[in-house]
Amino acid sequence: MTREAPPASTPLASAGLTCAVDIGGTHVRVALCTNEGRVVRKSKTPTDREGGGPAIVRDILDTASAFATHASQPVTACGVGFCGPVDFSRQTTIRSLQVGGWEGVPLALKLSHALNVPAILDNDGNTGALGEATFGAGRGKERVVYMTLSTGVAGGIIMYGQVYRGARHVAGELGHVKVLPDTPTTPRCNCGRRGCLEALCSVAGITAICERVLGKPLTPRVLFDAAEAGDEGAAAVADEVAGYVSRAIASITHTLDPDIVVIGGGIARAGAALFEPLYSALRRDLLPTYDPRTLVVPAALGDDSGLLGAVALARTVTERGVRAAK
Amino acid sequence: MTREAPPASTPLASAGLTCAVDIGGTHVRVALCTNEGRVVRKSKTPTDREGGGPAIVRDILDTASAFATHASQPVTACGVGFCGPVDFSRQTTIRSLQVGGWEGVPLALKLSHALNVPAILDNDGNTGALGEATFGAGRGKERVVYMTLSTGVAGGIIMYGQVYRGARHVAGELGHVKVLPDTPTTPRCNCGRRGCLEALCSVAGITAICERVLGKPLTPRVLFDAAEAGDEGAAAVADEVAGYVSRAIASITHTLDPDIVVIGGGIARAGAALFEPLYSALRRDLLPTYDPRTLVVPAALGDDSGLLGAVALARTVTERGVRAAK
Repeated sequence: MTREAPPASTPLASAGLTCAVDIGGTHVRVALCTNEGRVVRKSKTPTDREGGGPAIVRDILDTASAFATHASQPVTACGVGFCGPVDFSRQTTIRSLQVGGWEGVPLALKLSHALNVPAILDNDGNTGALGEATFGAGRGKERVVYMTLSTGVAGGIIMYGQVYRGARHVAGELGHVKVLPDTPTTPRCNCGRRGCLEALCSVAGITAICERVLGKPLTPRVLFDAAEAGDEGAAAVADEVAGYVSRAIASITHTLDPDIVVIGGGIARAGAALFEPLYSALRRDLLPTYDPRTLVVPAALGDDSGLLGAVALARTVTERGVRAAK
Repeated sequence: MTREAPPASTPLASAGLTCAVDIGGTHVRVALCTNEGRVVRKSKTPTDREGGGPAIVRDILDTASAFATHASQPVTACGVGFCGPVDFSRQTTIRSLQVGGWEGVPLALKLSHALNVPAILDNDGNTGALGEATFGAGRGKERVVYMTLSTGVAGGIIMYGQVYRGARHVAGELGHVKVLPDTPTTPRCNCGRRGCLEALCSVAGITAICERVLGKPLTPRVLFDAAEAGDEGAAAVADEVAGYVSRAIASITHTLDPDIVVIGGGIARAGAALFEPLYSALRRDLLPTYDPRTLVVPAALGDDSGLLGAVALARTVTERGVRAAK
């Protein structure tokens, strides 16, 4: 298979709009955005799990084309974040863990042809990180770690405004930082291993802890609401969850010494019910060099981290062609 | 306090020899080396714990000056690795955890004045990493993680031939990656926290595990020799130690996706008695993207990682002045 390079560069993206696509496990978002990170138009639809990859691609192409046709300014680029591993060199999806029919889809090429603009694809850990680093809580910082707590636990690392990809293009797999020893009773992760952060602090992981400790499989939202309302059992589980997140952040921070660690994803929207026990745990786990409250902050862009990261990513193709992935 | 910059650059270092200094907790090494990493002359003396910092500095200056006076080629630069935290911007030591009298010593300036060449100082985690990345097991690799298992557990990260320093110049504190939960029975680290790799896999950490499991405070050398000789109790402790190292490597690798992880320090000289259980544990802990035997390798330079890293570090002052620390 040959490398599918995006079409040749158009003039500087700041002249027009960027089509941003965020394909998540539960929702697919398509938007037109300015290159300063303002969302001009947006659609959000539940992910079509039955139709799978091909149906989702058709929907995205239809929506994006319709948006582009009726836009007040020309669409000059397209960026896509995908909820699963991506072959960045080939600009294809590898697979989705949530939805079938995503094996080897040349998604950037399809969007590029449909919209007649350069398009670029990355996994949604990297686009979320890029969104927060460029337009959100990590703006102006040189080394940004982004962790998303959601259906899965993923992440991305931005160094000097660019995605840090690592030797095999899989840097920032923060869901597989180890927070517990591998014993027969340690929860097993989707990756098949034990003790990974994702096995404990994803939606399913937290629900399983609630089942074990409280005898009830509470969702993270219900759990953190109950903790906030003063339920002692719920508060104990919130402490346990915060402890795992803290331990992962400590390992990442003592390795990378980032300027900031941004926590996003649906679970992070619990706010103080998660962040207060997290700051307590971080005071215990971090070296005294670090102030937990300035090091670790909630994401600032809510639902739009990934979309706006796709905008920032698309800039890299319009401004200088696809930059070398490092 | 002002920034103490080294004197102005001399011509390219390849014309002469570099004076390399490695100040460890147990030994101080001073050497003259070619810029291709060949040791021309070397002294190794036990660290003078009674005399402390001032006596050690006097000894180093005497030895280095004598070496320079009798050298066949001019000494054109000096690099120093120090076994404790360093203020890299000011080029001073901060303190040593092993020896007194090291508070705020402008070590680079002293050596620079004594030898009349530019000199540069860094902590020995970074110089060890730079030595292995430039001349040793990480040669030719773009992203090198170095972990040293010794009196303490330290590390360094080399990106594209340069030390990656992080936002507060404390990146690569791999001894404080978390490998156990913080419970009242978890061993306490020198940093005051619990569950750090250093608390378990330093010389004192391993000796304490032997005491707990075997009822005898074996040193790492005796432990790994016994494991190699077929002692089942010793083999079980070696497995436990390898498990902690593996878990730390998995967390670091899933974050950074390095080309290679180089393990050095005296404990790593156990060879197969450490590395075979380590590879078994890594097969359990690493994502399947990684082949443990090509990802994780023993250091190649033995005692000289730090000295040769000091040579590589000194190049950065002779070739372009002190490079901006990133």
